[in-house]
Amino acid sequence: MTKPLRVLLTGFDPFGGESLNPSWEAVRRLHGHILRGHTVVAAQLPTCFGKSRARLQTLLKRQAPQLVVCVGQAGGRSRISLERVAINVDDARIPDNDGRQPVDRPIVRGGPAAYFSTLPIKAQLQALQQAGIPAEISQTAGTFVCNHVFYGLMHALRDSPQVRGGFVHIPFLPQQAVAHAGAPSLALETIVTGLATLIDRALARRRDMKVQAGATH
Amino acid sequence: MTKPLRVLLTGFDPFGGESLNPSWEAVRRLHGHILRGHTVVAAQLPTCFGKSRARLQTLLKRQAPQLVVCVGQAGGRSRISLERVAINVDDARIPDNDGRQPVDRPIVRGGPAAYFSTLPIKAQLQALQQAGIPAEISQTAGTFVCNHVFYGLMHALRDSPQVRGGFVHIPFLPQQAVAHAGAPSLALETIVTGLATLIDRALARRRDMKVQAGATH
Amino acid sequence: MTKPLRVLLTGFDPFGGESLNPSWEAVRRLHGHILRGHTVVAAQLPTCFGKSRARLQTLLKRQAPQLVVCVGQAGGRSRISLERVAINVDDARIPDNDGRQPVDRPIVRGGPAAYFSTLPIKAQLQALQQAGIPAEISQTAGTFVCNHVFYGLMHALRDSPQVRGGFVHIPFLPQQAVAHAGAPSLALETIVTGLATLIDRALARRRDMKVQAGATH
Amino acid sequence: MTKPLRVLLTGFDPFGGESLNPSWEAVRRLHGHILRGHTVVAAQLPTCFGKSRARLQTLLKRQAPQLVVCVGQAGGRSRISLERVAINVDDARIPDNDGRQPVDRPIVRGGPAAYFSTLPIKAQLQALQQAGIPAEISQTAGTFVCNHVFYGLMHALRDSPQVRGGFVHIPFLPQQAVAHAGAPSLALETIVTGLATLIDRALARRRDMKVQAGATH
Repeated sequence: MTKPLRVLLTGFDPFGGESLNPSWEAVRRLHGHILRGHTVVAAQLPTCFGKSRARLQTLLKRQAPQLVVCVGQAGGRSRISLERVAINVDDARIPDNDGRQPVDRPIVRGGPAAYFSTLPIKAQLQALQQAGIPAEISQTAGTFVCNHVFYGLMHALRDSPQVRGGFVHIPFLPQQAVAHAGAPSLALETIVTGLATLIDRALARRRDMKVQAGATH
Repeated sequence: MTKPLRVLLTGFDPFGGESLNPSWEAVRRLHGHILRGHTVVAAQLPTCFGKSRARLQTLLKRQAPQLVVCVGQAGGRSRISLERVAINVDDARIPDNDGRQPVDRPIVRGGPAAYFSTLPIKAQLQALQQAGIPAEISQTAGTFVCNHVFYGLMHALRDSPQVRGGFVHIPFLPQQAVAHAGAPSLALETIVTGLATLIDRALARRRDMKVQAGATH
Repeated sequence: MTKPLRVLLTGFDPFGGESLNPSWEAVRRLHGHILRGHTVVAAQLPTCFGKSRARLQTLLKRQAPQLVVCVGQAGGRSRISLERVAINVDDARIPDNDGRQPVDRPIVRGGPAAYFSTLPIKAQLQALQQAGIPAEISQTAGTFVCNHVFYGLMHALRDSPQVRGGFVHIPFLPQQAVAHAGAPSLALETIVTGLATLIDRALARRRDMKVQAGATH
Repeated sequence: MTKPLRVLLTGFDPFGGESLNPSWEAVRRLHGHILRGHTVVAAQLPTCFGKSRARLQTLLKRQAPQLVVCVGQAGGRSRISLERVAINVDDARIPDNDGRQPVDRPIVRGGPAAYFSTLPIKAQLQALQQAGIPAEISQTAGTFVCNHVFYGLMHALRDSPQVRGGFVHIPFLPQQAVAHAGAPSLALETIVTGLATLIDRALARRRDMKVQAGATH
C-alpha cells in the first residue's frame, strides 16, 4: 500500500478590518484538486501568533504532505510574491486576531536567525511569468503572522528534507482594493491559476533554476 | 422613424513597445452590446497626434452617438480612472506611433485651456465601487495622445450639450504587467465589466452627484 | 520716478494636522531679498477657500508685483513641482482651516475651465536641475486650496499679460516626514535655494524653452 | 596603556552609473570626529562581491573597533533605513564594479541563513525621529553588495559579542535624484547628522528598546 501524495495549501482568516482574506478565498478553491498525482488539501489558519503555528503543526502531522505552500495577504503589493526567507522575529505593527502584538520576540527561542524557502522559487517565478501572471521574488515576508507561520513551517521541516515548503504572498482582491486608495489588486481567478501553476512547477521540478531576481537593496 | 440610440466607445492600438492595448481589447468586447436601449459601437483610434482626432471626428459624424467614452491605457495606474479634465497642450514624453513628439503645442490653436468631462464621473465612481471594481477620479489625463483625443472630443462636442462625452484610463492587463516590475494590473474581465457599468450609469443618470473625490495636490 | 520692481511670493499657514507649512517656512526666508533688481515680498495666505483668494487680490493691488509665485505643500511628492495648469473647480478631500469642504463647485462662476501658468516652467525646470535640485513639471495642482489660489491668481492676471504668475508645490520638510511613513522630503535649504533659482530664471527669461516634460497619462 | 576606542564607519564607491556614492560622501565627513570618547574611522569599500568583504576584514583587524556601522546607497528609498537582518545569499540584479553578477550563491558556504544586526536599531530609530530625521527599520538589505558586506560583517563578529555592528541604507542625494524621475532624496547634511546621531545612540545604550517597527508583509 502506497502513501497518499498530498500538497498542503493554507490560507488565513480575515484580519486588519477586512471582511475576507484573499488567501483563504483562493486556496479553498483548489481543495481536492489533483495536481501531478497529488491531492491538494486546503486548510485555514487563524491570523494569530502561536495558534497559527500550532494549527500548522497539527496539519503537518495529520496530512503528511510532500509539499507545503502557505499563502497570506499582502495588501499593497501588486503581484504574487514568492518569499525567499523567513526570519526568527515577531514584531507586530497591528494586533493579531487575538489582540496580541508581540515586539521583537523570537519565534523559536534559540532557533536560527532565518530559514530559506525550499520551494524552487525561481522556477516558479518563470512558470508564472510564462503564464502571463505578474509575479516576483520577495526578500522579506515581514514580521507579522505570515512570517511567523513561514518560519514555523521551515523550522518544522528542518529535519525532513524530502518535504519542501515555503510561503507566497498575494495582493488584495479588486473588491478589497476599492476601499484602499491606490492599492493594486489581482482577480481571484488570476490568483487561483497562479497558485495551481506554482504548485505544478514545484511538483515537476525538484531543483531550482539559477535566474537572477535579486534586489539591490 | 426614430434615430438609433448609440454609445461610441473607442480604444487605441498598441504603443510604447507593447504588443496589445488593453483599451482596444476591452472596448471591442462590448461592440454590439445593447445597454439601456443604446447599441455600443466600438472603434479603434491610432495612437497618433492628429490622426486620432481626425478619426474620432469621422466617427462622431457617422455614428451620431448620444454618449461617447474614449478609453486609453495608463500603464502604472492600479484602477479605472475617470478623467475630470482635458487640457489644450501636447507634450509628448515618447514618440507617437507615427514617430511624432510635439512639445508644448496647443491642440486647438486659440481653443480654451481646458474642457471638463461631461460624463457623470462621481456617479460612475460610485457605481464602480458598488460593483467591487477599483476606480478613482483623476485630475489629469496627461499630455500625450489620450489627452489629445479627450480634448479633441470635448472641443467637437462643445456646441452639442445633448451629447455627453469623456475619457477613461485603464491599467495594464496582467500579462503586460509581467514585464513591468511592480506595475499593477486589472483583469480584462474586470475592465470590461467596469466599462459596461460606467456606461450604464451615464445612461441612467443625466446629472452628476456631489461626492468628494478630489486631491489635495 | 520709477515703479519699484517686486516679486510677490506667497506661502500658506499649516493645515491637515501639521504644525508648520514648509511653503511659509521657505518663502519667509526670501522676504526682502533682491533678485535681478526685484525685491521679494513674502506673504502668508490662509489655507481657506475664498479667504485665500481675497487676501491674494489685496496683495496684488497693494504690491503691484511684476512676478507672482504662489507656493504650497504637497505632502507625498519628492521634488519641487512646477504646476502647469489651474482648473476651475473646488473638490476638497479634507476640510480647509475654516472647516469648509466644497465639492465640485466652480471657483469663478462662468470662468474658463482652466488657466495655464505664465511662468517659464520648462526653463525653470532646467535651471533647477542644473543646480542639482530635484524638480518636475506637474500636470495637476489638485482640487484643494492650492489649486483654488492658483486659479484665482491666473484669473486676476488674465488682463495683465505683463505680470506673470504661477504655482509651485513643495514636499514635506524632513521633520514632517518623520510622522508620515515612507513620505519623501526636501531640506528647507534646498527648497529655499530652489525658489530663488526659479524666480531668478523667470526674471532672466521672458519666453519659455521647448523641452519635453509631459506625462503619458 | 588603554586600547583606543574606535567606531569603524564604512561607505562604498559609486556604482550603477552614478558619479558619486552618498554613503562615502557622508561617512568621510565624520572621519576623525570624536563621539562619546570614540574616534570615527571612515573607510571606503569597493562595490564588489568578495573584495568588499576582504577589505572589511582587514579593517576590522587593523582598527579593532568597538562599533561598526556599514553604510550603503539605497536609491529609491526616502529615509535612513536601519537594517534588521543580513541573509546568506548573493543574487545580483546588476553587475558589481568588477562586472561580476552572482546568482543565488551563498556568501559563506555552510554559514547560517541569516544574522541579525547587533545595533540597538529601535533606540536608534527613536533618536533619529526625535532629531527630526526621517528613518525606518528595514526588514531586508537586498541581495547585492550591501547585504553581502552586512552578512560578512556579522559573520566576522559572530564570536566577538562585545563588538557590535550593523548596516544602514541611505537615499540618493538631491543632485542624484535629479536624474531619477520621482526618486526621493535626503540632503547630505541630514544624512551626516543622522549617522552621527545613530552612532551616538549606539554608544550610549547597549541594550535595545522594545518599540514596534515591524511590517505586516
